[in-house]
Amino acid sequence: MPVELKGNIVVTGANRGIGLELVKQLAETTGEEAHIYACSREPEGSRTEALRQLTTRHPGKITIIKLDTTNEESISAAVQAVQDQIGDGGLNLLINNAAIRKPASSGALFATKKNDMMEVYETNVVGPFTIAKMFLPLLKKAAQRDSPAKGSDNKTACSSAIINISTAFSSIEKCPETFSAAQMYPYRISKAALNMLTRCQAEDFKTHNIVVTAIHPGWVQTEMGGEKAPLTTMDSVLGMLSVISSLSNKDSGMLLDWQGNTIPW
Amino acid sequence: MPVELKGNIVVTGANRGIGLELVKQLAETTGEEAHIYACSREPEGSRTEALRQLTTRHPGKITIIKLDTTNEESISAAVQAVQDQIGDGGLNLLINNAAIRKPASSGALFATKKNDMMEVYETNVVGPFTIAKMFLPLLKKAAQRDSPAKGSDNKTACSSAIINISTAFSSIEKCPETFSAAQMYPYRISKAALNMLTRCQAEDFKTHNIVVTAIHPGWVQTEMGGEKAPLTTMDSVLGMLSVISSLSNKDSGMLLDWQGNTIPW
Repeated sequence: MPVELKGNIVVTGANRGIGLELVKQLAETTGEEAHIYACSREPEGSRTEALRQLTTRHPGKITIIKLDTTNEESISAAVQAVQDQIGDGGLNLLINNAAIRKPASSGALFATKKNDMMEVYETNVVGPFTIAKMFLPLLKKAAQRDSPAKGSDNKTACSSAIINISTAFSSIEKCPETFSAAQMYPYRISKAALNMLTRCQAEDFKTHNIVVTAIHPGWVQTEMGGEKAPLTTMDSVLGMLSVISSLSNKDSGMLLDWQGNTIPW
Repeated sequence: MPVELKGNIVVTGANRGIGLELVKQLAETTGEEAHIYACSREPEGSRTEALRQLTTRHPGKITIIKLDTTNEESISAAVQAVQDQIGDGGLNLLINNAAIRKPASSGALFATKKNDMMEVYETNVVGPFTIAKMFLPLLKKAAQRDSPAKGSDNKTACSSAIINISTAFSSIEKCPETFSAAQMYPYRISKAALNMLTRCQAEDFKTHNIVVTAIHPGWVQTEMGGEKAPLTTMDSVLGMLSVISSLSNKDSGMLLDWQGNTIPW
């Protein structure tokens, strides 16, 4: 039994780009019992307008949660808000999508300041680290509750998963092929670090039957990806949700692309 | 022609453990023209006593430089101090050895705070990033000045190198084998990030003929490695200096152990 797109689902960075499209497709395709917690730094701000409209179009399906991934108190409050709403239920899927890329330029060596390095790491790595830690009790609850009974033939069953949105640029192996196109020191380094976090947590959470997988969404037409990107957010998210829904324990601790191909570390 | 252990050499975190032993062996084995800049956060402090004694035993061979890798002004001042002393010369070898491991405990998920993640990254990744950036003009000078003439048969020549001291725990690939022995989230994640930095800079500095390589010193009997470690600092450093002195351009952007074996990302 693969990871099912059901139950309670948290998506961070849900107000635009890939995050917004994830919420949209999840709202459209999941069953009645599924609920999406769409996290955004500024639920009331103008940059969250599209998410608010989406929520209105799917009454009772989406809850917008205020979450600043760089702020531990904000994460803690978001976990509490989700918990209050799901009651005895657990969290089936956590998608760590919120990420930044700095500096705005190419991220070449001399254009990159110390603060760029620190801020990108804080959002792209320490955010997912802390969010997973704080949501762990809810993830464990779903994994225990919704997994098939022990002794079942289904060895690969898992009812709880963490997806860390990574990038092909995170591949240390492939760096010589991609570096000249976009140096992006802080971003690349943060995403290689996120891959290590993914693999550590995959080991750590194995006993809880929680799958942890990193996914490269492709080069997507978003604010971050730019206009030249070949892939629409719709096709990227279609692919990723298909990959996520077929994940099993053997995919835990891996880096896959939106078509399910393994990317080397 | 491999990287020669000659000319001007900078070692960070030189007051203890592997850094101190690197300075010792370099002082004992390099020729008369070589000079070692041994960097320490507190040159006057009690924790730098052993380095001061070493400096006294090798008159004119070692200069202690004040350097706090988390402080940009301190790095800038250290570069200036080195530059003042070497005059028209360049920097032949930069060994980024300074590193921390936090928290003091195993670094398990719930024992690790946000600040542990941030501080370890700042010292272990952003430090080497900034130090390499600021020493780059001096590294380029040595690479241009001391490399064989163009058209020489010696295609692998390099007279300037950056060594980033990494660890086998940095291997994302090997994480499932090593995780249970020592979780160390902040440390592992920082060193995977350092590997990506190494590979990016190897690409970036290729045109300058500067080799950038990450080295795993082995599990060494230091304050960080603990008493159970199988390798003495002496043997680790003997091995690493042998590896460093035989590095050529093909080793740039690689992660090697102290015996020269490649470790997968």
